Amino acid sequence: MTHHRPHDRAQAVVALGGGHGLHASLTALRMLVDDLTVDELTAVVTVADNGGSSGRLRGEFGVLPPGDLRMALAALCGDDEWGDTWARVLQHRFEGDGEMRGHVVGNLLIVGLWELLAKDGHSHVDALDWVGRLLGAKGRVLPMAMTPMDITAEVRGIGADPDQLETVRGQVEVATTDGVITTIALDPPDPEVSAAALTAIGEADWAVLGPGSWFTSVIPHLLVPQLRDALVATDARLVVVLNLAEQQGETGGFGPADHLAVLAEHAPDLGVHTVLADRESVGDDADDLLSMVEALGARLVIEDVAMGDGTPRHDLARLAAAYARIMQSTATDSVPG
Amino acid sequence: MTHHRPHDRAQAVVALGGGHGLHASLTALRMLVDDLTVDELTAVVTVADNGGSSGRLRGEFGVLPPGDLRMALAALCGDDEWGDTWARVLQHRFEGDGEMRGHVVGNLLIVGLWELLAKDGHSHVDALDWVGRLLGAKGRVLPMAMTPMDITAEVRGIGADPDQLETVRGQVEVATTDGVITTIALDPPDPEVSAAALTAIGEADWAVLGPGSWFTSVIPHLLVPQLRDALVATDARLVVVLNLAEQQGETGGFGPADHLAVLAEHAPDLGVHTVLADRESVGDDADDLLSMVEALGARLVIEDVAMGDGTPRHDLARLAAAYARIMQSTATDSVPG
Repeated sequence: MTHHRPHDRAQAVVALGGGHGLHASLTALRMLVDDLTVDELTAVVTVADNGGSSGRLRGEFGVLPPGDLRMALAALCGDDEWGDTWARVLQHRFEGDGEMRGHVVGNLLIVGLWELLAKDGHSHVDALDWVGRLLGAKGRVLPMAMTPMDITAEVRGIGADPDQLETVRGQVEVATTDGVITTIALDPPDPEVSAAALTAIGEADWAVLGPGSWFTSVIPHLLVPQLRDALVATDARLVVVLNLAEQQGETGGFGPADHLAVLAEHAPDLGVHTVLADRESVGDDADDLLSMVEALGARLVIEDVAMGDGTPRHDLARLAAAYARIMQSTATDSVPG
Repeated sequence: MTHHRPHDRAQAVVALGGGHGLHASLTALRMLVDDLTVDELTAVVTVADNGGSSGRLRGEFGVLPPGDLRMALAALCGDDEWGDTWARVLQHRFEGDGEMRGHVVGNLLIVGLWELLAKDGHSHVDALDWVGRLLGAKGRVLPMAMTPMDITAEVRGIGADPDQLETVRGQVEVATTDGVITTIALDPPDPEVSAAALTAIGEADWAVLGPGSWFTSVIPHLLVPQLRDALVATDARLVVVLNLAEQQGETGGFGPADHLAVLAEHAPDLGVHTVLADRESVGDDADDLLSMVEALGARLVIEDVAMGDGTPRHDLARLAAAYARIMQSTATDSVPG
C-alpha cells in the first residue's frame, strides 16, 4: 500500500472546458481530491451555450448560460449518497409537457441565486460559490468570462460555392454545422474574466484542457485574451486531453493530430506539457500524433482511458488513474530528496 | 440566568397551518429549537393552493402544490448567514418578463426532487426530507395530505338571492370571495395522510394550530379525517393561535370569538388546551372571547405578540416567548419533583 504524503504531493489543478467533456474530466479529478492526490480543484467553464434550458434562461434573464456551470458543479459533488443525490437533482431535466419542460433544476437554482444575490451586489462567481458550498462540491466552479459569449465560426462547404467561407454564429449552430470549421472567434472578443479564474490558473500546478467539443468547449478558452495570457504566463503544466472520436458536425473527419493542430493555430504561443490520448482511439494515427506532439515540444502519454464498449466515453476511474500518474511522476521528479 | 435542562424540559411540537401564518409560527418555534426549549419540530402543511407558481406547477405536473411547504422549509432555516441566504433563495420569485416570471426557486427545487425521486419509488415526504437536510432545516416539513386538495366553501351573499348559499371552489377563490363563508369542505374528502404526520401528532407534547388564513390554511387540517382523529386522540395539548385581524374576503367581519366558533363548528370533538391571542387585537372583544374559550374548556392566554406597528404581523421574538411560557409553565407543572 502506498504511503500518502498529501502535503508534499498534493497538486492544485485547474480544468478548462465545458459540457460533457469537462464533466468527465472533473469527475476523474474529483476522485483525485478524494484520494488526496489533488488538494485544490478549480473548473473554468465555457459560457457560450445558446440552446436548450441555458439558452432560454440566457434569453430571459440576460445572465450567463448556466448549463455548463451546473454540469461542472454536479461533477464535483461527492461520491456518496448525499453527493450522488444532489448531483442528480442538479442535472434533473423537467419532463411533463408544460412550460417547464426541458428546464434543468440546477440551472434554475443557479439563475435564481444570480438574480437574488445581484441585488446585494454579489457577482455570478459568489453565487456559484454558494451553490458549491450548499452541495459540498469538492472544488470551485468559475465561468470562463463574466459576460455571456457567442461563438462564431468560419465554415467551408455550406454555401453555393464549396470553397467560400461562411460565418456561422451560436454554439448550437457551430456544433452542428454541416461544413468544415476552419477557425472560430468569440463575441465579445475580449470579455471580462474573473480575478478568481486568473488566480487559479496562475497558482495551479497543472492545467487540464479538454476533452470536449473541440471548437465550442475547448478552444474558446484560448480565445479569451486574459485567459490565454494567464495560461501562457503560468508555471502550471498544461495537459491537453484528446477526444476519443471525431464529433459529427464540429470535428467530422478530424484525427487526433488535427485536433492538436487547430488548437495550436488558435493559440500559437501556448506551451503544452503533456498530451493524453486513448490507445484504441489513436490507433493507426499514432505516428502522426507523435510528430505533432513533438512539434509542440510536449510529451505524449497514451493510455487506455476509454470505456472500451464502443461508445466514445471515458472510463472515469481509468482517466483518474492516468491523471494521477501524469501528475505524480512529474511531481516526484520535482520533489527534493 | 435560567439553568436549561433540555432533556427534562424540551418539547416535541407539531405545527399545523399554511402560508404566511405558519411561516410566522414556525419561525417563532424554530427560535425555541435554537434555545433548546423545543427539541423536535414538525410542520404539517396545507396542500390546497391553486394559484400562482404553486398552481402552475400543480397543473403542469399533477404534484402537491409546493408553495406552503417551501415557505415552511424557509422558516426552519437557521438564523445565521447560511440559513438566511438559503431561506431567501428558496423564497426567491423570478422577475424578468418571460416564462419563468412568478415562479419561485424553492418550488422548482421541490418539484424537481419529486419528479426525480418518484422514479426511485420515493414519496413526496422523502423528497421534502432531502430538501430539509440540504438546507439544514431545524425541523421536518410534511404535507397535510399525500394528494393535492381542493377547498370548497359554502358562501352567502354572492348570488342574486343574498340568503342563498353558493359553492365556491379553489383556495384562491375561497380566500378572495366577496361573500360570507359559512362552511368549507375538502375534495377529496378523505385523502391519504402520511404515517409521519400521524406519528408526529401522536407523539407531540404540543400541537399548534394557526395563525393563518382561517378557512383556507387552518381549518382544512380539521377536515382531513385521519388528521382530525389523530388530533382528537393525541395526548398533545392543542394551542390555537388567533389571527391579529380579520382578513378581507375570508374572514371579513369576524372577531376573535367568531374565529374560534367556526373552528369548533368544523371539529366539535376537538379538545383545545390553550388559546393564544394578542392583547391589542382582542381589544373590546375580550369578554366574548373568554366566554367562547371557557365554553371550549380551554385556557385563554393574552400576550402582546403583534409587531405593534399597525400591520397585522406577529413579532416573532414575542411570539416565541409566548410559546415558551405556555409550554414551560405547563411542562413544569407536569415534571415530577
